[in-house]
This record gives sequence, C-alpha cells and structure tokens, in this order.
Amino acid sequence: MRIIIIGGVAAGAKVAAKTKRMLPDSEVHIYTKDDYVSYSACGMPYYIGGDFQDWHQLIIRSVEEFEKNGVHIHLKKQVTKILTADKKIMIKNLDTDDWQFVDYDKLVIATGATPFIPDFANIKSKRIYTLRTLNDGIALKEGMLNANHITIIGGGYIAVELVEAFVKNKKKVTLIEKAPYVLSMLDEDISTLVQDYMLENSDNLLKIINSDVVSEIVGEEPVLDVITKKGYGFETDMVVVASGVKPVVDIAVDAGIALGVTGAIKVNSRMETNIKDIYACGDCAEKINMISNSPSWVPLGSTANKEGRVTAINVSGGVEDFEGILGSSVLRYRDLNISRTGLTEKEALKLGFDAVSVVITKRDRAGYMPDVKNVTLKLVADKRSHRILGAQAIGSGDADKRVNTISVGLLRSITVEELIDVDLTYAPPFSTSIDILISTAQILKSKLG
Amino acid sequence: MRIIIIGGVAAGAKVAAKTKRMLPDSEVHIYTKDDYVSYSACGMPYYIGGDFQDWHQLIIRSVEEFEKNGVHIHLKKQVTKILTADKKIMIKNLDTDDWQFVDYDKLVIATGATPFIPDFANIKSKRIYTLRTLNDGIALKEGMLNANHITIIGGGYIAVELVEAFVKNKKKVTLIEKAPYVLSMLDEDISTLVQDYMLENSDNLLKIINSDVVSEIVGEEPVLDVITKKGYGFETDMVVVASGVKPVVDIAVDAGIALGVTGAIKVNSRMETNIKDIYACGDCAEKINMISNSPSWVPLGSTANKEGRVTAINVSGGVEDFEGILGSSVLRYRDLNISRTGLTEKEALKLGFDAVSVVITKRDRAGYMPDVKNVTLKLVADKRSHRILGAQAIGSGDADKRVNTISVGLLRSITVEELIDVDLTYAPPFSTSIDILISTAQILKSKLG
Repeated sequence: MRIIIIGGVAAGAKVAAKTKRMLPDSEVHIYTKDDYVSYSACGMPYYIGGDFQDWHQLIIRSVEEFEKNGVHIHLKKQVTKILTADKKIMIKNLDTDDWQFVDYDKLVIATGATPFIPDFANIKSKRIYTLRTLNDGIALKEGMLNANHITIIGGGYIAVELVEAFVKNKKKVTLIEKAPYVLSMLDEDISTLVQDYMLENSDNLLKIINSDVVSEIVGEEPVLDVITKKGYGFETDMVVVASGVKPVVDIAVDAGIALGVTGAIKVNSRMETNIKDIYACGDCAEKINMISNSPSWVPLGSTANKEGRVTAINVSGGVEDFEGILGSSVLRYRDLNISRTGLTEKEALKLGFDAVSVVITKRDRAGYMPDVKNVTLKLVADKRSHRILGAQAIGSGDADKRVNTISVGLLRSITVEELIDVDLTYAPPFSTSIDILISTAQILKSKLG
Repeated sequence: MRIIIIGGVAAGAKVAAKTKRMLPDSEVHIYTKDDYVSYSACGMPYYIGGDFQDWHQLIIRSVEEFEKNGVHIHLKKQVTKILTADKKIMIKNLDTDDWQFVDYDKLVIATGATPFIPDFANIKSKRIYTLRTLNDGIALKEGMLNANHITIIGGGYIAVELVEAFVKNKKKVTLIEKAPYVLSMLDEDISTLVQDYMLENSDNLLKIINSDVVSEIVGEEPVLDVITKKGYGFETDMVVVASGVKPVVDIAVDAGIALGVTGAIKVNSRMETNIKDIYACGDCAEKINMISNSPSWVPLGSTANKEGRVTAINVSGGVEDFEGILGSSVLRYRDLNISRTGLTEKEALKLGFDAVSVVITKRDRAGYMPDVKNVTLKLVADKRSHRILGAQAIGSGDADKRVNTISVGLLRSITVEELIDVDLTYAPPFSTSIDILISTAQILKSKLG
C-alpha cells in the first residue's frame, strides 16, 4: 500500500509519522514544494523576535528522522495534478523542471494555506514580505535586521505577533488595519483594550492606522512609499503583508474535489473528501464549529495536528472522528495574553443566537500577593437556553488557561448556572477565592434574570 | 427580621455582607470569639513567608466597613449555646465574662474548623504553635523570626506552605509526617515527586521524616526536645502542629443539630440544617462530592465563599442550591504548583470505581521557547464508563489551570474520548500544539482499549 501526502508542515507531517507507525509495511511519501517539512510555523514570530536564535529549533522532525523511520520525503517536488480515476499524481521537480507520475492507494491533501495578497502589493519588490513558510521566516528576520521602519498590512494574529517581534528589536512599526481595531476575530470591546495596551506598551515605536487600507506602494529601492486610500503617505524600509490567508485548493478543485461553503476542502468527520481514498486535513480543509454545528474555516496548528492524527488512523484502517473546533486561540503581545474560545458576541448574533454578554475585570490572584495583575473576561451566553456560547480573556500570565476551562464546558453545552457550580482550585498565589470565571458567570446569571 | 451569624472569617463574613445587601431592612449580626472578622486565612503562610509585610492586608472587610453597611460585628463574644425552641443564643463576653441572650429569626452557623492537636503536644509551651486564626498567624511569624530550627508536625497543605515560608526566611526545618510521603491527599506517585522537589529546592534547610510520629515533646525552654515513636530525637526552637483540622460542631451538637457521616454539620443543598431557620456553611458544614455523590468534608476558602453566597440567598428568601464540591485545590511550593480535582486514584478505588490512570510529563510550551518547563499530569478514569474521575498536576506556572479545565468536564461527567475532542488554545509561549491534557487523554484512551 502506498500512501502519498501532499504537504508536510503540521498536518501532513503528523499523518506521515503516525501512518507509518500504524502500518509499518506501507510505503509513505510526503511530496512538498517547500524546502522543509515538519516545522513549527507558529514559532516563526518568536524566532524573528529573538526568543531563540537558531531557526533549526523550529524543525520538529528532520528529513533524516523521517527517512530513518521509513517515511520518504520529497522536497521541492510540487504536485500539479491529481488523476483521480487512475489514482495517480503528477509531480514537478522544481529544481530540474522534470515531470513524473506516481500511483497512490490513499492520498492525503495537506496543502495548507497561503497569504492573501491584496491587489496593490507590488510583490516584485524584495522589500515586501509575507510569512508562511520557514524560508519566509528566515528571509523576514534578515530583512528586519536591516530595516529601521517596517510597515505591517493587516491586524490579525500574525500581524500582532510580528509587531511584538519588531518592537523587541527596536524597530519603528506602522500597522495598517482596515477595521477600526486590530484583532477583528475578537469583539470590539476586547480588541479595543488590546489595541490600547499595544500602543501603551511598545516603547513609542508603534503607530496604528485603523479604518484605512494601503492603496499603493511605490518609491525607489531601498526606500518604499506607502500610500493609503485616505491619502496618508509615509516612507518605509520594508512591508509585511499579513492580511490573512486562504486555503490552497487549486489542485483539489482541478481534480473535482468538492469545496465547502468556506472555500476550503469539504471533509467528513473521518477527514474524507468526496472522492474515495482522498483525504484532506490541516489548513486546506474545512472544519465544523461545534457550537453552531456550521462549517467554519480557522487555520491553526493545534487543529492541524489533531486532524492529522485522525486522518492517519482512518488512512490506516482504523475509525476515528474529528468532531470539530471551538474556535479556541491565543496570542501574546508582550505581557498580554489574548485568547478566545467558542463564539464571539458578534459571531453569535450573526448565527442567530439571542446573545447576551458581560465583561468583567478582576485581579488574577489575592490582592495582597506580589505581582497581582488584572484579567479581563468576556462571557457570551444564549438568552433563551442560558447556554454559554463563548469566552474571551486578556491578561498577563494564564488568561488563556481560564478560556480553556470554558472550552471543556462548551463541548457539553454547559449553562451559565452550571458554570457557577464549578469547583476551581484556589490558593492566594493563583486566584481569588471566587475566581473571575465564577464571578463573571454569577453576574451573567443576574443579567439573564 | 434579625439574622445572626456565628463566626465571621470566610463563610460568615460572606453571608453577612450579602444578606444585608439583599435585605437592607433586616438586622444582621456576626458574633465571633475571634479578635477579627473577614480575613484571608489562606493568605497567612504568605504573610509569614514575607510575600507581603503588613498583616492588615489580609483583612477583606474591616469592622468599620461592616458597620457602615449596617452589619453589626461582635468580637470576642462566644456563642456558647443555641436554644432552638426559643430561637435564642447564649453569648459569653470573653473580655468581661458577662453572659447575655439574644433572639434570632434566622441563625447561620459558620464556626469553621480548628486544628487537630495530637495527644503528645504539650500545648502549654509557648513554643508550640498552630495556624488557624489571624492571631495565630501573627504570633507564628514572630516566633519564626526568633527561631533557628523549626519542627512541623504534619505534611498537608498548610505544613508544606509553612515549609516554604520558613525556608524562604533561611530557617532550618524538620517536617514529621506519619504517611510515607507529604501531601497524602494526592496519589503517592505524585506526592513522591513533590517531596523530591521539596528536598531538592530547599537550600539544604529541609529534612523530612516520613512514616513516623512525634511521641513526646520535652526539654527546657527555650529549647524543646522532639522525640519520635521510632526513637529519633532532636532539639528545636519551635514546633508547629499542622496535623489537620476538624469541624467546630460542639454548640451545634449540643443543640441537637445533626452531623453527617464526616462529623461535620449535615446540610441540604440550601445549606439548611435539620432544624428550621438554622443554616450552616463553610468549614463546619459537610459537603457533597459531585463525582461520587457522597458526603465529603474538604474545608477550603473557595468553598466557604460559595456556600456563604448560597446561604445568604436562601436566608434572604431566595432559592439557590449549592451543588457540591469536586475536591479541587492547589498549593505552591516555591516554583512548583501542585493541584488536584475530582477523585485521586486511591479515593476512586476506595469508592468502588474500577479506576485506571496514566501519568504523563510533557513540556508546558513549545520546546524552542525560553523558560520551557515540564508539567506532570495524572488523569484518572473509570474503566467501564470511560468517565474521567479526576486529575492531579504539578509543574511551574499554570499547572493548576490545566486541572481547572478538567474540573468543568467533571461537572458533566465527561469521558476520556470527549476530552480528546476539546479545542484548547495554542501558541508557542503557552502550550505545545497538542497540549498535555489532550496527549494524556489520548494515552489513557489507548490504555482503556
């Protein structure tokens, strides 16, 4: 049996390693156009920032390790076509431009996502960067070290993580975000607080332009001129486009593999596409949101790993379901930890829930302890059923772990009243005697009446 | 309407403050034999250790604040009898030795717990201390400052927290624990790790004697001689008895108020005793363990606060239930955070569950990040139903928050398979892409077959 995996970053690498362990007699191949496999793409902003110095640390399993375990790695070999009737793929060797056909018994598409490049971006300039592959990360760090002023287009997770990295390296940064605040995946009341924190904790190196977009990038190397739609213009040494990503689905579409409403590859809970023996997982695959039971596309490393595990079990003849996602995520901006799970209030309203919410700020531990800090928690519930729909938290330290506590409740449609009953650990260095999770639920209960 | 509360530390203070808010026209009184009300007893070890210098910081609501809000505080007034037929209490003024009777409409017993004093302890010596009231804490700190060598009898939460405080103050400490390891409320595989950590991280100031008890304390002031049952003897400047606590139920028993099987006051979910208009809450009251649905007695500040809230609502004519506890707790020993929720494996086996467990040690965040540390998680499940019964975690930072994540699952009898589906937040500074919670559940699932 020959199992071929297209793409080898998080999901693809996981499928390969686990499938070979489960089916030692099978032939397992990863084909990728990339120069590397099995690396932590999520770690690149911290490499760029200087949390660690050697990018090799981002490699999870080396090519040698894979080969030693019997997984064949084919770098710089781009799969350009899937011939589903013949169960073959067509491969282009990016070094030699040669072509070849290879048969598969089972095929796993793990092609990931690619940055969305707005029209204006002159992608010919070497001073315009994106961050997706490890090569991008290495190049971006080199570029940063030679720049004094950097422009970031976009205000999502990667954008904010890169602001941290650049400010840590004493670079001046201008961030341009089309929404009125950064991090539009949070509710505005929370993202406002994050943006205020960023502006107050960036050593006066950060400028944020909201509600505007870049209309043009011109200028003569090495200096670029950025011009926004509202007519704002400035010089910059380097531009990073971080305006979101889209799933890589071209060869799938070409092969007749169905996409979902989100534009990512539609899969069932076994990670099977509409075509027999072809699976998809990771950032190229659509997910189900477990709260709304509706299709969702949130490309994250944690989900990719879990989907890779489920795919490997099913490819190997086992039976395992991936139940979906809760929209949980976290990022850091300096000492601030920003996290969410479930639905935001705006998402809940959009999906037709009668959403109600409270936002509470409270100490993270007993007031007399050293290093006491505030944590802010937003809890969203459905007015009719009192079911908790989601939570957002910001704070230093372990705000994300408080959100994770809610995540488990979301799995089982816990109500606000039930959350009040939870017995959380308490000691003065770690929480208040009534933790913010419970206080917030108590206040939300009163509001629900 | 006159509402009288006996005891005013955590539960009693909470009942008083909330009842007065809910029933502004009522008369609310706290009677206590203590010199203080409304303080954080849990914070005393950190005051003793020096995390903060002024014990007044432990006061949550001052007597003046209570009085301003219309709650009457009667310090050093011990309630010696409850006359249930007449709805009166008999009070002894500890300053004057005068007696008085006061009528009540509703009575709340919040008398707390008191240290268990083993027979050997010569409680006449001023150099033998316990830690329960704020006065105890103030005296214990003074004693510590004048001691070079301190003996701690017992190895529970308070004992371990006091070791930390004493070692931080460069005192030599000998701890004597009758069990083979400290922290017998944890499973032995976890408490062994804690004891090893303590011995390795106490600047060579700590000696632990296990499986032995003190048989005699003699000697001439200011030096005491401690002699153990196994014949070990040594000199010490000061002894702290931290061999556990028992509920204060004497006046309740005298009044015909029923105790539960644990020896604490039996209450229903509204915190009502068997006698009309008499409630009990906090450390003197029995609780229900929500996993086993059996009576349990775990005296903790977090539970006392929650019970106080529920009591106040019911006293005020509302309807609120306290559903019970999960046995969740946490303590710190230097950089180690030690926590549990639900049942330990030994508790589960004792209760008749067919318990199975795994213990996993894993990094707490991506391996390439600075400050990466290990966290150890033990997960206990029922072999038949696959229901998760409990968790124990040790590690630096936020190990307890991972235990809290399990707590919410325990509320709804989550299974090992369901826990695998939880979508936890991931970013390299905060976790690994597959968090230890999920890895552990995956391994436990394999073990369950």
